[in-house]
Amino acid sequence: MKLPTDPIENLATLIRCPSVTPAEGGALTALQAMLAPMGFASDRPVFSEDGTPDVENLYARLSGNGPHLMFAGHTDVVPVGDEAEWTHPPFSAAIANGQMYGRGTVDMKGGIACFVAAVARHIEKNGKLKGSVSLVITGDEEGPSINGTDKLLKWAVDRGETWDAAIVGEPSNPDAIGDMIKIGRRGSISGTITIHGVQGHSAYPHLADNPLRSLVSLLDALLVPPLDAGTRDFQPSNLEPTTIDVGNPTVNVTPSKATASFNIRFNDTWTAESLQAEIHNRLDRAARRTKYRKGRKEPVSFDVVWRDRPSHVFLTRDDRLVNTLTKSVESVVGRRPALSTSGGTSDARFIKDYCPVVEFGLVGKTMHMVDERVDIADLETLTQIYERFLVDWFG
Amino acid sequence: MKLPTDPIENLATLIRCPSVTPAEGGALTALQAMLAPMGFASDRPVFSEDGTPDVENLYARLSGNGPHLMFAGHTDVVPVGDEAEWTHPPFSAAIANGQMYGRGTVDMKGGIACFVAAVARHIEKNGKLKGSVSLVITGDEEGPSINGTDKLLKWAVDRGETWDAAIVGEPSNPDAIGDMIKIGRRGSISGTITIHGVQGHSAYPHLADNPLRSLVSLLDALLVPPLDAGTRDFQPSNLEPTTIDVGNPTVNVTPSKATASFNIRFNDTWTAESLQAEIHNRLDRAARRTKYRKGRKEPVSFDVVWRDRPSHVFLTRDDRLVNTLTKSVESVVGRRPALSTSGGTSDARFIKDYCPVVEFGLVGKTMHMVDERVDIADLETLTQIYERFLVDWFG
Repeated sequence: MKLPTDPIENLATLIRCPSVTPAEGGALTALQAMLAPMGFASDRPVFSEDGTPDVENLYARLSGNGPHLMFAGHTDVVPVGDEAEWTHPPFSAAIANGQMYGRGTVDMKGGIACFVAAVARHIEKNGKLKGSVSLVITGDEEGPSINGTDKLLKWAVDRGETWDAAIVGEPSNPDAIGDMIKIGRRGSISGTITIHGVQGHSAYPHLADNPLRSLVSLLDALLVPPLDAGTRDFQPSNLEPTTIDVGNPTVNVTPSKATASFNIRFNDTWTAESLQAEIHNRLDRAARRTKYRKGRKEPVSFDVVWRDRPSHVFLTRDDRLVNTLTKSVESVVGRRPALSTSGGTSDARFIKDYCPVVEFGLVGKTMHMVDERVDIADLETLTQIYERFLVDWFG
Repeated sequence: MKLPTDPIENLATLIRCPSVTPAEGGALTALQAMLAPMGFASDRPVFSEDGTPDVENLYARLSGNGPHLMFAGHTDVVPVGDEAEWTHPPFSAAIANGQMYGRGTVDMKGGIACFVAAVARHIEKNGKLKGSVSLVITGDEEGPSINGTDKLLKWAVDRGETWDAAIVGEPSNPDAIGDMIKIGRRGSISGTITIHGVQGHSAYPHLADNPLRSLVSLLDALLVPPLDAGTRDFQPSNLEPTTIDVGNPTVNVTPSKATASFNIRFNDTWTAESLQAEIHNRLDRAARRTKYRKGRKEPVSFDVVWRDRPSHVFLTRDDRLVNTLTKSVESVVGRRPALSTSGGTSDARFIKDYCPVVEFGLVGKTMHMVDERVDIADLETLTQIYERFLVDWFG
């Protein structure tokens, strides 16, 4: 029986499935069919939650004697944007000038295609693995991430699964394969401040309480001083205001309330909880200052609503996992990858609660863009790195 | 024939007309019907200008031998805000606990209702006036003020009208009837700042340029230090931010631009032109500081659009008008009103070019607010003051 040893062929098969989040689009079925000849046993649990779309997921396990490696990823992709702007249709897997074009080529059907090829080559050469491999593949990474990896891991644990290490196949390299392994991620919290005032006439500010005056003071207190200066493993935590909205069209009226939203990416100086407490403290202090500095009778009145669930910061300190992957990369590309905690969140934030996890995949440059594409040569390189890792880590 | 001698009844009739600017809402028609039995001749000119709504106005004259008194005001009202927050519906003229509730009760259908009642009582007692009275009533005082009093006065002048003095019936009293006659007004200018940035991902702020960071600095530069400390006849100039709007719903994206609007009430330290120059200077300096303090390559990019026409500052120095009204107030309420230039602009800024003008009306505390309301007793007091003024001024 032919095994899926060719990452280009594997990727083309996956790209041709239009699995724009949350649609399965045939991608999980195609992946399951690729895995079956190698002996993987697959489940396809569907998860639901009020207010979010149902999402299909894949848990595929190849059992052997020895440690258990998880490979995690997603087959859902972001929308294509304006399809007319694409040089080649986004679900055609067209190859031109040494590149395969398609939505999901690097983020991250490409990483899956390479890992599947690596396992197939290993089995072809060695007969079997010296351990177990599970693929944890969701269709809800680009969506709300509620009916995906988080629930799939709990579902597997309920069935007795445990893992010794995990690789997330997200595109971790900024410019070239081998640049960077992600060994942690900043956390992320988002909130909305509402400042309550009293509507009034612009000409009689003493009879009103203009929340925009207080907003300037409160936002300034969030921005200055900086949250921290960074840590050994992480860049400085950072707060960005994302919107301020009042919606008052009338120039001679001051509004009764104003809202401002913000997002914070934070390092291991903080937990989500300690950072939320810091934000409340800064706002409370700024509100009290409005009483003394501005001659108000009472501190400005505000509330903060925290949006969504926080993403917790984490750092993977598993030498065997990190060192083995570092050497696998080095032996294939001839240079040592940086170990980084930069960038946005990923599903590694769920996996970290079960086993050590790192992220290593393709080059992210074109992800989420029109003409997302991957170097054909990179597919072979990444497959070789994953194959080498299977040999070295199972040992 | 029954004359409109009851200010409460007059006001209830006007409040029930939902004349939210620029809608006539039936208010001018109701007023014209009140005036007709006293012999007023009315015109209802409609004025237009590109980019502004057409607005209906009322010029009503009762002619006699002697000096010509103008009473000026408006029947348009500001929007009600969140109607659910009102204790009584805003156009119901509901009376409870000695108060009439309704949008426009104090600003300023109440002033009109009292003046009409004062003229009616005078005619009922004396048969006729010892002079002429004209009501100059617009539906464009709370709006852009382009198709209102300014054009209505020019329209009347074109028809040969001249006036000897004018009272504007705006709510001039801070706490109680008799507190204050306005003998001048601060000027007013309004502008909108747009700050231009570069959209980006909240996790990669160095690849974006978040305009909300700069907005905080620029707004702060407008608020601090104060514009001036006030002058002999005027309180300090003051700037109020009126709205900030971005409209970005996505928490992991920072926006490409942000707008903030503001209104300034200014005293005779400034002309509209010198003040606009000061604002540009403050913004330019703050923008340049963003380059040095925040390590930007370029100062933050912004533009300012000045809204509408400026209102110019003025002071009325006509002893007969001011002294007569002062005595009328004193004789009814038993205390001497302060002569003030505080508060917002009014259409007095247009009238000042034709004759001496003062402002005296109800208590302004609840104007533009939810639950705008007037003490029923104040309506009787103001009617008596206006009636006394008619006797004393026509002499």
